[in-house]
Amino acid sequence: MDKKTYLLIENYMLSCMTDSAHDKDHIYRVLYTALDIAKTEEDVDYDVLICACLLHDIGRKEQFENSSLCHAVVGGEKAYRFLAENGFTADFAAHVKSCITTHRFRKSAPPLSIEAKILFDADKLDAAGAMGIARTLIYKGQVTEPLYSLTSDGQVSSGETDKKPSFFHEYHYKLKNIYNSFYTLRGAELANERRMTAENFFREIYKEVSSAYEKGSAYLDEIITE
Amino acid sequence: MDKKTYLLIENYMLSCMTDSAHDKDHIYRVLYTALDIAKTEEDVDYDVLICACLLHDIGRKEQFENSSLCHAVVGGEKAYRFLAENGFTADFAAHVKSCITTHRFRKSAPPLSIEAKILFDADKLDAAGAMGIARTLIYKGQVTEPLYSLTSDGQVSSGETDKKPSFFHEYHYKLKNIYNSFYTLRGAELANERRMTAENFFREIYKEVSSAYEKGSAYLDEIITE
Repeated sequence: MDKKTYLLIENYMLSCMTDSAHDKDHIYRVLYTALDIAKTEEDVDYDVLICACLLHDIGRKEQFENSSLCHAVVGGEKAYRFLAENGFTADFAAHVKSCITTHRFRKSAPPLSIEAKILFDADKLDAAGAMGIARTLIYKGQVTEPLYSLTSDGQVSSGETDKKPSFFHEYHYKLKNIYNSFYTLRGAELANERRMTAENFFREIYKEVSSAYEKGSAYLDEIITE
Repeated sequence: MDKKTYLLIENYMLSCMTDSAHDKDHIYRVLYTALDIAKTEEDVDYDVLICACLLHDIGRKEQFENSSLCHAVVGGEKAYRFLAENGFTADFAAHVKSCITTHRFRKSAPPLSIEAKILFDADKLDAAGAMGIARTLIYKGQVTEPLYSLTSDGQVSSGETDKKPSFFHEYHYKLKNIYNSFYTLRGAELANERRMTAENFFREIYKEVSSAYEKGSAYLDEIITE
């Protein structure tokens, strides 16, 4: 890919992300990680891969404004239109669209080409390890959801059987389960290198807070008289 | 302290925190941790301590609306007024006010009584370990500040010499430095138990992201032609 083409695609991506300045950092992490994975795979079409990585989240704004829309489907369609209008071949645009459409975890639409599998894995890696913990916490701050919920007796719920949204719930519902969903060997390897950091962090924050509630509320019960 | 008094103070605290539903979780963590510390100290006035813990952040709203105000000073004054109006003695109200006024880190106003020192330590413990990392990330999400900044050559800055606000900057500027600022032995002990989790998390997130940028941007330079 020549520099002019890269900048054309990058600028279109940036123009789609004016709402959330920092989501673009995620795009570059996914692109860079995808290139790391691609180096270990054969017959990768780097032009398709780079284009799909840069454009994979351009449907986020539409999904944010209308939650019935899927950003992967909208993003795939937007990417196809943009590429067709800018002189890329129909085959190229269709391949990029297919990568973007299948980058989100859905059993009904798994990634098929090697470029689609690499994008899928690179995107999931940004939800693994310390980065997965950090991005989830930042999101909880943005939507003002709590770290944890309390049980009916005022203790800290681990989140495993919670119904209400919280960071602890999200850890059990999503974060801890992504490590077996990788398509490439290098993706699975990177995920496993990062797994222990996330597991250690969750175990320790749960210990810090549940032990404070357990001991402290017992002390308080001793002190407060009827 | 009898239950009626506890509920009176707790309800006043809750009435001051309508803006930020989840900050009240911090109040209970501080209260419970303070009671844990208090068990290891002698001659603690538990009524003063419980009251000071519950009310220590009631000046947050005023500081949020006018950043030239200090929530510790405003909170101390509000607590004194509330207690005086509700039949507590002037001595009691003054002692609680003094604890609240000195709970924030300022060289010019260190905590003096054992109750003030315990509140200070319990509040700082909520910025230590995994909880300190989590609260900082949630805050970065609320104020839409990034995880990290880039250096002029497009690599990830560790944050150590940054001027711009980010999570990495905050880690070096504040989080990593709190472990030597405790007044009580139990506070320092709890902080040290939690220290490694925070250090490990920061080291690993920096490694994940800096290595992705370093390798990925080099691969991209190889692929993109002029």
